[in-house]
Amino acid sequence: MRPITRRPWIKTKYINMLSHQVSYRVCYADTDQMGYVYYGNYARFYEIARVETLRNIGISYKVLEEAGIGLPVYENYSKYHAPALYDDLLRIECRLLKMPSVRIEFEYMIYNQSDELLHEGRTTLVFMDLAKRKVVKAPEWLISAILKQSKDD
Amino acid sequence: MRPITRRPWIKTKYINMLSHQVSYRVCYADTDQMGYVYYGNYARFYEIARVETLRNIGISYKVLEEAGIGLPVYENYSKYHAPALYDDLLRIECRLLKMPSVRIEFEYMIYNQSDELLHEGRTTLVFMDLAKRKVVKAPEWLISAILKQSKDD
Amino acid sequence: MRPITRRPWIKTKYINMLSHQVSYRVCYADTDQMGYVYYGNYARFYEIARVETLRNIGISYKVLEEAGIGLPVYENYSKYHAPALYDDLLRIECRLLKMPSVRIEFEYMIYNQSDELLHEGRTTLVFMDLAKRKVVKAPEWLISAILKQSKDD
Amino acid sequence: MRPITRRPWIKTKYINMLSHQVSYRVCYADTDQMGYVYYGNYARFYEIARVETLRNIGISYKVLEEAGIGLPVYENYSKYHAPALYDDLLRIECRLLKMPSVRIEFEYMIYNQSDELLHEGRTTLVFMDLAKRKVVKAPEWLISAILKQSKDD
Repeated sequence: MRPITRRPWIKTKYINMLSHQVSYRVCYADTDQMGYVYYGNYARFYEIARVETLRNIGISYKVLEEAGIGLPVYENYSKYHAPALYDDLLRIECRLLKMPSVRIEFEYMIYNQSDELLHEGRTTLVFMDLAKRKVVKAPEWLISAILKQSKDD
Repeated sequence: MRPITRRPWIKTKYINMLSHQVSYRVCYADTDQMGYVYYGNYARFYEIARVETLRNIGISYKVLEEAGIGLPVYENYSKYHAPALYDDLLRIECRLLKMPSVRIEFEYMIYNQSDELLHEGRTTLVFMDLAKRKVVKAPEWLISAILKQSKDD
Repeated sequence: MRPITRRPWIKTKYINMLSHQVSYRVCYADTDQMGYVYYGNYARFYEIARVETLRNIGISYKVLEEAGIGLPVYENYSKYHAPALYDDLLRIECRLLKMPSVRIEFEYMIYNQSDELLHEGRTTLVFMDLAKRKVVKAPEWLISAILKQSKDD
Repeated sequence: MRPITRRPWIKTKYINMLSHQVSYRVCYADTDQMGYVYYGNYARFYEIARVETLRNIGISYKVLEEAGIGLPVYENYSKYHAPALYDDLLRIECRLLKMPSVRIEFEYMIYNQSDELLHEGRTTLVFMDLAKRKVVKAPEWLISAILKQSKDD
């Protein structure tokens, strides 16, 4: 984990292929006794952001599952710079990190209403054939939708 | 994040100072539509494991907070090897990674009832003066309790 | 609980003082292994709906807490007619049931995108002096805000 | 809801057929900003208690689902007498309220380590054929297991 504290990803050149942002109002259910958003609840924020990022270019995760492909999470990294607080109106920026193959990687940057960076995260998910419970390649139509959007930009 | 996929921590020499394990029965609330434990719920498993690890050597997180010191999470890393499933009886091994200073780092290994390694995680928390909301050093009595336990082993 | 199954509240005459509706997209975190929204997660939906209902007439729950008054839940009733499913875009209707005194009661009706009634709920909360941990009357300014809105309708 | 505040169930004669209790340690994930267990998290406590109550007489909910029968929640009622707090070691008493037919009803009483009654709840679940998504009668073997246990007492 050493390398994480050096934050190597800051140097990452983003392939500017897919990014999106969503708003999220922190509710009481999200908070803990310290008055912070409980650290496990950021996973929900990531999920909302990446699903909307895909929906924004016409990819529905629900339809993906109905087509027999799921996206279980394989790896997750979270860095908590400052706490998100009750009633904060968060801006969650989500970015696709590279062209998906059998995996798909997203990065998240979470800001509060004062535009303060509170949180960074990264999640790797794998494409899985839900019937066979086997890892598979990203479907062609999903790759195409991403490529099409990249050209449109 | 490159270094993470190389899993550098596997080489880590553990200072054999503090480790503990807890059992956890997966409930329906933990599962998601895929029939897996939702990826954000592992944070709860980690929390339970590290709090019991500390309690096991006489350190109560509740007492720590009553003494004005909190432990917000600063960094978290999770790797999902295989899904935890409904009704699984998990064994969560928790280990202190080094002597705490202003930070305290725990590692978790989660196994199911068939002794299959399902999951690995790492969490770094910081000692925080709750009144001043400032990072502080780990209290002496906490360091002593860890040192005492190391000698006892 | 007998009376509940007779659903006496259906006869309730609503004092048409305060109602509001919010949209909510069901996420994976909300679902369980059955593919339904886990029954405990409706509490979050209620919370979001009642906080926005109050915000809509200028009452911020956050400001209420900062003024030293909290609203812990005293009683909750939920009826699950049909499951909310992943990716459903719910419409949560929230209604204040009577003029608040030391308690405040809300009713919720949850519909999916096909306008099917999925769920009904009722929650009673109490006004609590957070410092003294004692039940108190609703603050005047809150009552006034509700009365003002009733006249405006 | 009027009748609820009169608490008619207090008069209920319990068919002394099935009851059980479990311990639960409140974790940080359960708490909210008020320092209380978030009101929606009691649903998880109920679930753990009723599943262990059934397991205690040899009925596994997991096996029930594998046999094609699920138990979605139809109705839930919760009364919050006093808050459960962080690190509380709760005792959750669960009781079957009557012989199951197409429905099964459980009652919960939650006490803290000082034996103070914090919370009461009631949940009605329905037996559902998971393939047909239709309500069905409780399986014979489940009824038998309950009857057998009643005789044993």
